[in-house]
Amino acid sequence: MGRITVRTSITRIVLNDDDAVARRRADVLAVEEPLEIRVAGKPLSVTMRTPGHDVELAAGFLVSEGIIAAGEEFRSAIHCGGPGAGSSDAGALLSIGPAPVGVLANGENTYNVLDVALAAGIELPSTDIARNFYTTSSCGVCGTASIDAIEKNSRYDVRADPATVDAGLVQRLPDLLRDGQAVFEKTGGLHAAALFDAATGELMVLREDVGRHNAVDKVVGWALLNDRLPMAGTVLQVSGRASFELVQKAVMAGIPILSAVSAPSSLAVELATSAGLTLIGFVRGSSMNVYSSPARVLAGRARVLAGEEGG
Amino acid sequence: MGRITVRTSITRIVLNDDDAVARRRADVLAVEEPLEIRVAGKPLSVTMRTPGHDVELAAGFLVSEGIIAAGEEFRSAIHCGGPGAGSSDAGALLSIGPAPVGVLANGENTYNVLDVALAAGIELPSTDIARNFYTTSSCGVCGTASIDAIEKNSRYDVRADPATVDAGLVQRLPDLLRDGQAVFEKTGGLHAAALFDAATGELMVLREDVGRHNAVDKVVGWALLNDRLPMAGTVLQVSGRASFELVQKAVMAGIPILSAVSAPSSLAVELATSAGLTLIGFVRGSSMNVYSSPARVLAGRARVLAGEEGG
Repeated sequence: MGRITVRTSITRIVLNDDDAVARRRADVLAVEEPLEIRVAGKPLSVTMRTPGHDVELAAGFLVSEGIIAAGEEFRSAIHCGGPGAGSSDAGALLSIGPAPVGVLANGENTYNVLDVALAAGIELPSTDIARNFYTTSSCGVCGTASIDAIEKNSRYDVRADPATVDAGLVQRLPDLLRDGQAVFEKTGGLHAAALFDAATGELMVLREDVGRHNAVDKVVGWALLNDRLPMAGTVLQVSGRASFELVQKAVMAGIPILSAVSAPSSLAVELATSAGLTLIGFVRGSSMNVYSSPARVLAGRARVLAGEEGG
Repeated sequence: MGRITVRTSITRIVLNDDDAVARRRADVLAVEEPLEIRVAGKPLSVTMRTPGHDVELAAGFLVSEGIIAAGEEFRSAIHCGGPGAGSSDAGALLSIGPAPVGVLANGENTYNVLDVALAAGIELPSTDIARNFYTTSSCGVCGTASIDAIEKNSRYDVRADPATVDAGLVQRLPDLLRDGQAVFEKTGGLHAAALFDAATGELMVLREDVGRHNAVDKVVGWALLNDRLPMAGTVLQVSGRASFELVQKAVMAGIPILSAVSAPSSLAVELATSAGLTLIGFVRGSSMNVYSSPARVLAGRARVLAGEEGG
């Protein structure tokens, strides 16, 4: 299995008023390595990710892209070329093929190629996913087409989820996320995504990765492999910002509430509004911004109702 | 032309000790829209970006991918379907084709499809760029192959660049970057990348985007369109972290020094070390970490020399 952190030697410079001190010292970095995801042996995507939970990452990616939406549609996954799956993720099977792909000249497995077997009858994805998702004949490529494609592809109705969440709980989520990040403390270099029960605040799963989209895919993949899709009644908390892509992943997994530490983009808000997902951002100190479906956020005695206030 | 920011209406919740106040108010978001980059009419890539400087973005993307490396290799670019290029970027030409691509049913141009014409003799890129860059026959997909591919593709020798930079200047770059960000102030939602003269600290160009990689591509594209490649003697300052992809873009553009506000990844450090690029991270307060080629960083009376200190 790949390592999650690696030690290195750096030069640390500390500036004083009129001079500077430079010292060599040890440091720890978050590992980044490419992962090629294959379906039935056919290369589908290459993503730069932090090794670990690769099966979840592949499963979540396939959910995000609208290819699968239930545990039984994901049959198995193997790291190509290895003596075994090399992963404790649910769904990983032993490698049985003689394929040399993913193996270095010295025989060491890179564990950077993962081949997924889907259930019979699942349509194999196009290798041109980006175009499929963002394109329509009417405008070529545009935000509206991107939103339409996701709503057409999603099997879950986020809008119908009656979940609510207390604003006080939302306020605590960034700290709970940070507390759960094992690797960030050492490297400062990992994004995180975590799923919480919207009613109780219970942490269900937390994943870290150099790529924020990968951390979310790992969370979604965990849910698929544990037969928990759609993730009704949950809040997904992410470090950093909320892009269109992150809202897409939440919608495709049936997550009704997405909370980000920082700002969302215009298209993230448009998709959240269109799909009926509650998008929260700038959760800092004692305040937060709700960009869509605010009726799910209970704020003290005053329940936030968009309809009442012109939203 | 697309907008860079858009107004929206949000619900702002402020928590008190035993209650909360929720109010509707206006807010400003950073715009995110897909851009499809085509070369000679053939779709090459779709990226989610902030509109503006699209020609630079496409040019920089082509440099990052090793397809072009000089201004004369980039002939022209048009937004498909529009009445004009709709851009003040250098290199933009009037649209002359009848192509309806990129036009909404109401006749409005989305300006989300950009077609690039390269000079005769430039080999058209494969649409499978990711695999080309990350794959070799020996290991399938791995970090070492990714590094090898970039060094094979790069036309510039970053290691040979004699540039040095004063540590005191590096310390000021994050503030200079933030000062130059026009849109961030309004939205909090944009990454930025800026190029500085390593000797004088002069700001050469600054670009913002919802995607950090896009902000860097816009900077690199600016340099290509202004015949400034390779960007010898410069420092590229980026907001946030330093991934493999950002180091790749710096190496391909001949930038000798990359400085990031936050942490680099393992593969970012490996590529920087291998290519002879000076990678600086965690530039905060009075300190910074130098991860590779520290001899370029002048720290007061003590010049940092990796060799002297075992690095």
